[in-house]
Amino acid sequence: MRKVFQAELHHIGEELIEISQLVSEAIQRADSAFRGADTELAQEVIAADTRIDFLQNALDERAIDVLALQGPVASDLRMIVGALRMSASLERMGDLARHIAQLARLRFPANVIPERIRPTFDELADLDIQIATKVTELLETRNLELSSEISAANSRVNELHASVFRAIAAEDWNETAPTTVDVTLASRYFERFADHGVSVSSKVTYLVTGEWHPSAPLN
Amino acid sequence: MRKVFQAELHHIGEELIEISQLVSEAIQRADSAFRGADTELAQEVIAADTRIDFLQNALDERAIDVLALQGPVASDLRMIVGALRMSASLERMGDLARHIAQLARLRFPANVIPERIRPTFDELADLDIQIATKVTELLETRNLELSSEISAANSRVNELHASVFRAIAAEDWNETAPTTVDVTLASRYFERFADHGVSVSSKVTYLVTGEWHPSAPLN
Repeated sequence: MRKVFQAELHHIGEELIEISQLVSEAIQRADSAFRGADTELAQEVIAADTRIDFLQNALDERAIDVLALQGPVASDLRMIVGALRMSASLERMGDLARHIAQLARLRFPANVIPERIRPTFDELADLDIQIATKVTELLETRNLELSSEISAANSRVNELHASVFRAIAAEDWNETAPTTVDVTLASRYFERFADHGVSVSSKVTYLVTGEWHPSAPLN
Repeated sequence: MRKVFQAELHHIGEELIEISQLVSEAIQRADSAFRGADTELAQEVIAADTRIDFLQNALDERAIDVLALQGPVASDLRMIVGALRMSASLERMGDLARHIAQLARLRFPANVIPERIRPTFDELADLDIQIATKVTELLETRNLELSSEISAANSRVNELHASVFRAIAAEDWNETAPTTVDVTLASRYFERFADHGVSVSSKVTYLVTGEWHPSAPLN
């Protein structure tokens, strides 16, 4: 019984890693589509998101079956409830990568982001990609140093997100209103993606250390 | 044992209703603060959100205890897992009400929304308030007609959200860039709030009927 249970827990962990890898791929490709105004690539990211949703449902069903059949307690139980929450955050990260791809597709053949503010968005995208990669690695290794690195990357994302609004409020901002909308939404998507990454990482930390540090109210 | 368990399930249901009532209050007050540019009321909504977060944590801890101590199966298990998910959506709705209040506070003494587009936002706010009220009622009564009403209200919210972007893209939109940002974010907050309401309502429907209709990919 215990052996079956350990195998199930292991399987759930593997599935989380798989979803996290797909999310990491999604944000990388969404960013390429976004930077390069590549509508085909954007379309692929959008289509691939259904796979993430499917895997999340499958993981959740498995987790519920384990709860029903094995009645786990203590740390095993927290691991499974944690997996349900992490899968929800990862699924949401997939949605946000899809939204970024959708913006690229919507504005094709134009670039979503005006030239002058592109360096900020390049850095936002790089940070999100780093966060997604580190989340996968954290799920694989449980090396909590990654968790601090994820938090640090997220702080930088928040700074950049705020700087986007300062740029828009500056006197020399002379973009069209629809561009202002796109920039606002894109910045928000990148910022939310990072937040969910921190959310997954806090849960892993909690499962490893048993200490819960709910993050300050975010967005 | 069974009796204790039923009492625990009942308690979890009551806590969900309490959180839902607070969310309903939060969106109503956030909307008043937003329409009336009332910074004190906005501050109250912001402060009250910590209570929602606290109750969500308490509910989640209770749900995990029930899983550990009672090892529920079948529909009882699904009810508890459903409660964990609903509490996450409700907590998020509280955050979004807080964001709306924060916009009101940030722009005080000005109104966030320009005159000409205010009717759209009044309707968005009314629909969100309706959704929140109906979610509470649905949790109390499990009357699934409310669920259809919530979906219908959400469809209207999506239409209005799209119409906001059309208004911004129209030639006669001559607002400042920061106003365009505020309008974009406010519309997005109202739209996300409604989505989470649908999410809670789908889970109640699932628990009552056993039929799961995952909604189409939303935002």
